[in-house]
Amino acid sequence: MKIKVIESVLKANDAIAQENRKLMDKTGVLTINVMSAPGSGKTTLLEKTIPALGPDYRSAVLVGDLQTNRDAERLSGLAVEIVQINTGRGCHLSATQIADGLKSLELKDISFLWIENVGNMVCPAGFDLGEHIRAVLLSVPEGDDKVAKYPVLFQPADAILITKVDLIGVLDFNIKNVRDDLSRINTRAPLIEISSTDGQGMDKWLDWLKSQRKKQK
Amino acid sequence: MKIKVIESVLKANDAIAQENRKLMDKTGVLTINVMSAPGSGKTTLLEKTIPALGPDYRSAVLVGDLQTNRDAERLSGLAVEIVQINTGRGCHLSATQIADGLKSLELKDISFLWIENVGNMVCPAGFDLGEHIRAVLLSVPEGDDKVAKYPVLFQPADAILITKVDLIGVLDFNIKNVRDDLSRINTRAPLIEISSTDGQGMDKWLDWLKSQRKKQK
Repeated sequence: MKIKVIESVLKANDAIAQENRKLMDKTGVLTINVMSAPGSGKTTLLEKTIPALGPDYRSAVLVGDLQTNRDAERLSGLAVEIVQINTGRGCHLSATQIADGLKSLELKDISFLWIENVGNMVCPAGFDLGEHIRAVLLSVPEGDDKVAKYPVLFQPADAILITKVDLIGVLDFNIKNVRDDLSRINTRAPLIEISSTDGQGMDKWLDWLKSQRKKQK
Repeated sequence: MKIKVIESVLKANDAIAQENRKLMDKTGVLTINVMSAPGSGKTTLLEKTIPALGPDYRSAVLVGDLQTNRDAERLSGLAVEIVQINTGRGCHLSATQIADGLKSLELKDISFLWIENVGNMVCPAGFDLGEHIRAVLLSVPEGDDKVAKYPVLFQPADAILITKVDLIGVLDFNIKNVRDDLSRINTRAPLIEISSTDGQGMDKWLDWLKSQRKKQK
């Protein structure tokens, strides 16, 4: 009985996710679900990426947190539309919450819709939101063992960003371990080593985003 | 109906947690549920703490991960009993998993039973395992905004450890923000600033653990 309920919750979520995706396709919005542990640098990445994309690409952001609107406040300087979604005790965003958030956005004006999911390496992976791309972040301070420990997150990823790579000399982190673990579960997604502090890897990330946008059109 | 099912799962968990706690009390084991985001340094903290407690305090470890036994392997050099629990897609340990793990330990020989929970800032907080103490870690690289964002984890904590404080000069982290947020939700738990790299704060942490052990007896 327990399983039945969980399945029906997931089925309901997936049906709404498909509606979200249809709406996004119709209005020509490329949607990116950004997922990672807390503190991997999701908000910082968006703070750097959105202006760097330039005036040809307009962004909007749906940002999920259990509590507070601190991430939305941090992003408010970017002059793009931002919707903060508070999940209370919920450890992930759901397709319904995204559908609600979409109502307050002018989708036809938007190139990239960023969904900054709740910081969590397990829950968000199970919930399709209607996104086109899953971008998963792993920051250097978290350690090079996380791909093996959280395959549920890294397996379906379309892009994997190793963030805070400027700390590689300071901390004990061997990117070869990440590559080895990924070679077993996901060889499809590009692995992008990036630092929002010194800017390395940003060009590769921006080029990849623009290529995805081109493909969609 | 959904809520009913969730409640009954939680009720069943809590009943088993109480049995676990009774068993631990009877055998004189102090049990510590260690919780944090992935990569905050739970395993490293145990690697440093267990030997530093000295021969008067014997430890055992139950370690939870979705996949792999890497943490158990890392701890295997400590010459204490270790049980690895793989949760599959589960984002937390449950009281039943702890009850199963306890069966393979000689409890009467143990002073401290460490439960290293799955790396997650949300799910583990909802599940009583029968522990006496909840120790919550927040590492400097995760950022100083996490107490406000995850009150569900920090509110019921009995000890809060700011880990990797050797990185405070390197990264943008203001401990005052953590203290301010804690002053609103948890003034009971000691806040211990600690580094497994340079050893700062370790004495305070060991003294606190021994005082808790003394109280129990």
